[in-house]
Amino acid sequence: METKQAISIETISRLPKYLAFLREYHKKSNNSLYISSAIIAEHFEITPIVVKKDLAKVSTKEGRPRMGFLLPQLIEDIEDCLGYNNVKDAVLVGVGRLGGALLDYDGFRQYGLNIVAGIDRDQAVLGISPGGRRIVSLDNGAEIIKRLKIHLGIIAVPGKSTQEVCDYLIECGIKGIWNFSPTHLKTPDNIVVKNEDMASSLAVLSIQLKETIHREYMNLGEHSI
Amino acid sequence: METKQAISIETISRLPKYLAFLREYHKKSNNSLYISSAIIAEHFEITPIVVKKDLAKVSTKEGRPRMGFLLPQLIEDIEDCLGYNNVKDAVLVGVGRLGGALLDYDGFRQYGLNIVAGIDRDQAVLGISPGGRRIVSLDNGAEIIKRLKIHLGIIAVPGKSTQEVCDYLIECGIKGIWNFSPTHLKTPDNIVVKNEDMASSLAVLSIQLKETIHREYMNLGEHSI
Repeated sequence: METKQAISIETISRLPKYLAFLREYHKKSNNSLYISSAIIAEHFEITPIVVKKDLAKVSTKEGRPRMGFLLPQLIEDIEDCLGYNNVKDAVLVGVGRLGGALLDYDGFRQYGLNIVAGIDRDQAVLGISPGGRRIVSLDNGAEIIKRLKIHLGIIAVPGKSTQEVCDYLIECGIKGIWNFSPTHLKTPDNIVVKNEDMASSLAVLSIQLKETIHREYMNLGEHSI
Repeated sequence: METKQAISIETISRLPKYLAFLREYHKKSNNSLYISSAIIAEHFEITPIVVKKDLAKVSTKEGRPRMGFLLPQLIEDIEDCLGYNNVKDAVLVGVGRLGGALLDYDGFRQYGLNIVAGIDRDQAVLGISPGGRRIVSLDNGAEIIKRLKIHLGIIAVPGKSTQEVCDYLIECGIKGIWNFSPTHLKTPDNIVVKNEDMASSLAVLSIQLKETIHREYMNLGEHSI
């Protein structure tokens, strides 16, 4: 299926969540073939209009009045839209603690991601990962990316060499970068970058948590007077 | 240092990036004691006003005209604001492939996070992780959270039992949740949740990548006419 035009980032971000819920719902209620957008909306605590608009972007069949969407069809449509049935190949650079874990993480498979190889400059880690993936040098990595026409690169090196690794990947022909390091990358306009910035997430979480605990503490104080 | 009021999520999200850059800059240019907001802004390709406003929220000393901020002081101020000098304890539930990697990931330390223990319901994984962290049962985990007054819980279980684990953590007294599973969590208002939704990130990246490649392909076609 071709991706329809003008599907927003907000919609795309919600699709994997819908999919996880629909799969689970399908398993649990093994008699129900249909699901309404209202049930989905209720689960995610959003308005049914948002769900309806999102599903209109991806579903090949319209929902039936009073019945809703045919569940197996809807699941397949979302999977198709997300490309889960069309596995994407990727390479991962930086097979340290985090990189090694991502390289061997089976969960990516279910999102349609196949990490073909790990790449590292450290001779000591080259070979086969505990999960059975090969880990190759920068030179061999470049050869693999070009030969297999891989478009997606995952960066999991520590901060300082991130830009260097990014330039290397673009040089090899990579068009999309999933960046797990906290470094800001400079890339040409035609390169897609998605930052998985755990340092930022943790910073936001910590400060909000601090405020919550402070607020509860103050409230406790007030009540005890 | 107390966190100043009204620091926005946008500002907080940028702070770890500034910090990484400032540390690197400090190391590289070992003679320069000062840095201007213009240099920071240029590196991140944002306007100097944004940088100035961000730094005004966290710096204890104002920048000096024509000189900028005293680098070591600024680094320390950001670290203080982010709580990196005041280590936060956390527990992690779900010591599978990804959870195990996060449990042993040393990188969190530098962001002021200390994972005290892993928690899992699977008897087979209990004991000590390869990185030397203890992995305990749900019952023992509850006891540790209460005794050490831990406020932060990391969820790394596969989709279906996520809500159950979330309820368990809140029951134990956890106030903040860092969720690595793609499941939408239902929590009371006083609980802070941060979703690290890799499935959504990957979905956005994949679709943008598809569009980029498609566009380049079309452009190539045009040029060759």
